[in-house]
Amino acid sequence: MAPPSSLTPLPVPPELHVTNRETLLNSLRRHLSESSRPLYGFVLLQGGEEQNRYDTDHTELFRQESYFAYLFGVREPGFYGAIDIATGKAVLFAPRLPAEYAVWLGEIKPLSYFKERYMVSTVHYTDEIATVLHDEYKGSGKPVLFLLHGINTDSDLFSKPAEFQGIDKFDTDLTTLHPVLTECRVIKSDMELALIQFANDISSEAHVEVMRKIRVGMYEYQLESMFLHHTYMYGGCRHCSYTCICATGDNSAVLHYGHAAAPNDRILEDGDLALLDMGAEYNFYGSDITCSYPVNGKFTPDQALIYNAVLDAHNAVISTMKPGVSWLDMHKLAEKVILESLKRGRILVGNVDDMMVKRLGAVFMPHGLGHLLGIDTHDPGGYPKGTERSKEPGLKSLRTTRELQEGMVITVEPGCYFIDALLVPAMGNSNTTKFFNHEAVSRFKGFGGVRIESDVLVTANGCKNMTNVPRGISEIEAVMAGAPWPLDK
Amino acid sequence: MAPPSSLTPLPVPPELHVTNRETLLNSLRRHLSESSRPLYGFVLLQGGEEQNRYDTDHTELFRQESYFAYLFGVREPGFYGAIDIATGKAVLFAPRLPAEYAVWLGEIKPLSYFKERYMVSTVHYTDEIATVLHDEYKGSGKPVLFLLHGINTDSDLFSKPAEFQGIDKFDTDLTTLHPVLTECRVIKSDMELALIQFANDISSEAHVEVMRKIRVGMYEYQLESMFLHHTYMYGGCRHCSYTCICATGDNSAVLHYGHAAAPNDRILEDGDLALLDMGAEYNFYGSDITCSYPVNGKFTPDQALIYNAVLDAHNAVISTMKPGVSWLDMHKLAEKVILESLKRGRILVGNVDDMMVKRLGAVFMPHGLGHLLGIDTHDPGGYPKGTERSKEPGLKSLRTTRELQEGMVITVEPGCYFIDALLVPAMGNSNTTKFFNHEAVSRFKGFGGVRIESDVLVTANGCKNMTNVPRGISEIEAVMAGAPWPLDK
Repeated sequence: MAPPSSLTPLPVPPELHVTNRETLLNSLRRHLSESSRPLYGFVLLQGGEEQNRYDTDHTELFRQESYFAYLFGVREPGFYGAIDIATGKAVLFAPRLPAEYAVWLGEIKPLSYFKERYMVSTVHYTDEIATVLHDEYKGSGKPVLFLLHGINTDSDLFSKPAEFQGIDKFDTDLTTLHPVLTECRVIKSDMELALIQFANDISSEAHVEVMRKIRVGMYEYQLESMFLHHTYMYGGCRHCSYTCICATGDNSAVLHYGHAAAPNDRILEDGDLALLDMGAEYNFYGSDITCSYPVNGKFTPDQALIYNAVLDAHNAVISTMKPGVSWLDMHKLAEKVILESLKRGRILVGNVDDMMVKRLGAVFMPHGLGHLLGIDTHDPGGYPKGTERSKEPGLKSLRTTRELQEGMVITVEPGCYFIDALLVPAMGNSNTTKFFNHEAVSRFKGFGGVRIESDVLVTANGCKNMTNVPRGISEIEAVMAGAPWPLDK
Repeated sequence: MAPPSSLTPLPVPPELHVTNRETLLNSLRRHLSESSRPLYGFVLLQGGEEQNRYDTDHTELFRQESYFAYLFGVREPGFYGAIDIATGKAVLFAPRLPAEYAVWLGEIKPLSYFKERYMVSTVHYTDEIATVLHDEYKGSGKPVLFLLHGINTDSDLFSKPAEFQGIDKFDTDLTTLHPVLTECRVIKSDMELALIQFANDISSEAHVEVMRKIRVGMYEYQLESMFLHHTYMYGGCRHCSYTCICATGDNSAVLHYGHAAAPNDRILEDGDLALLDMGAEYNFYGSDITCSYPVNGKFTPDQALIYNAVLDAHNAVISTMKPGVSWLDMHKLAEKVILESLKRGRILVGNVDDMMVKRLGAVFMPHGLGHLLGIDTHDPGGYPKGTERSKEPGLKSLRTTRELQEGMVITVEPGCYFIDALLVPAMGNSNTTKFFNHEAVSRFKGFGGVRIESDVLVTANGCKNMTNVPRGISEIEAVMAGAPWPLDK
């Protein structure tokens, strides 16, 4: 019997976060110089805190705040981190733990442990922030703290600037850091890419595992359980990038299925299409992969029609991606390829360019083509200052409309869904009703939808797909019937 | 090959939460009558909300607040629930969802869906709370709302009383509900017990699965992964009662090992003892089970000595438990049995009663003997008003000191650990140094510890152990060598 996994957890280079800090320092110094500001002061971030569940002493498994993770890689709660802009020195501030900690929660590690593990210049306690930063400061006047304050363009929530006792002894700058640091996160270093690649490798393998074991009669959540187990057991991935979407049958038309109110609890039926959107996180860095295939292992003609429409869109985008290409154009390319396929399949009728003008693509693909991926599944930086979100159907859901740049990792995830809430109005609307072959569309009642999602790195001359799962119909059917993956030649 | 599980997810009777509401109504009406207060007004609770991770749009998997779960069993976020004290009618208030919900998150269910699913009298929207409750009210004057406000004696945090637009049109009572409702949760109904039993059954089976598959060279987290997978895959348990503690070697002396700063990441070595504290949650109701055994499947004499000391304590307590027995006395019984065993094993010397007076038990078992278990792992109600926590070592860690009552479920989890942070001071203290065989103790450097934890129901005449895992050394060694569980006769 083949071993259950060909992978082992990737060693994480401790230089990863040192490099991230250097990236920020270079960028921030350049920014300050350009606006003729002094190269003094400190970047100061507050790490995340452990959370209790409501009023109980049940603590949720801690996951570090992403900006803090990017710069310092600290896995423990309750830290602060500073970077001295003048010297480039990084300082961590650790919480002072009570003596009982050693009994209940483990060894109280000396500060030197954190200094070594996180490769910073010095480590102090969090009650020493004001003193330490004042002592370190070599500029004149009150030292300036560059704090993290800015909006996340996916959630519309603001990041929380660091707070600590004695902050009144500093000047604070709330506007400079967020856009600069966010922009650093957009372009991935080789070390970051290695982690995203590992998250992709173990998640791809887990998807194949699920593909092999899926059976009519299972619960959707059993697919989730198999995925989580494979990525944790063999990849050491304790966190998932997001709640697994294990949607079958009509559920596959619910874009973010799987949450507590729709908890992957349907029983798989013969003839169902499964849409499985699942990705593991490894050392903070994520993956985000969707596979769609029939539960019983054999595509029907209608399933093949929709699947290939989406696959053609996925492949057309990946063939076109390279630096300088606009993501908005890629979204429209995907829409167009899908609409053309639906026309060939006699589900739509008429001129595809007219359909594009009427935004018909958004009826079948209401979400954006993809998003930046990194320490967050929806990595920040999609809409830098000065760029605006479209208000048009479909396009307004895009999490970015940027031009591609070398080093970006972005998901390519076209989809085609039969969603009554969108189809019924569009088919009834006098502007768009003519495009539909109403009889053909009715055949897809309860069909659900297809999404195909890969994580793609933009390279100097094109791009590289970091995801490695069966994509062609014959590949999927072969693997589901027991063939190895990759297929033997 | 034997099937991987003999269990399937237990159907949940919808009457469960109806019964819980009746329990509260009876208790609250009795309480109000006794203080000559009118039987009018509403119990009003606010359910939990989905949480974002920091400033991102990453949403954590929602888990309902426990008091709300007890009364209403609602799995969706954003609800309120009311009970009319005069009529006993239950009313749910559902959030009004935007039209896009249907595209992104699933069908917008009609209010009748929630009425049927949660067996309440009526369902309205959350923006109708004030109007609906005013219309329902049959008393005179402003209607009174009984809100949930009280301290959790494990976390020292306060529950959050419901808040809504229009609350100023009501009188609010913040003191009556919390103690009465908390007391209802202390005594379990038969339907609640069936769920706790199922959580125990699937978790017991998963512990046996891990026992069979554990190998030298694995990572601790692989044990966690196997446990989680078994309970989700075959038991439908999406949530765990608490973060898995998979402690091996010296880590087994860290009582709450496994959190983000000590994340089950050690490699198992030959000769290690494993202490695995893991329990699944099923439909809100939890389990909490610890097994301790050698990673290589064979107890050494020293491992057997400590293990049997703890097992004898575990069994002595369970043999003595019945209504009326004080939990403080049970804690002391466990301590005494352990101290006697350590004396027999020549680790301690001298008079055990003297050791008890000097609180030597707390050096080896710094935590409490056990805690109430239900919708919370540390279920509330351990210290009702008027009862006080001891300040003495060990005893101060008890989460309850109550007399046992029929229908309580409580964990019995004695332990014996070799914790330098406690042993070194005790062995150096002139009051206690004489009790230690210093040479023998030094043999246990790096030994870690043993904990044995079962979930026990107090019955009319005694108690029932709901946990079913191998406990005797010969049972454990047989199962680890491949014997079925339960053992063949």
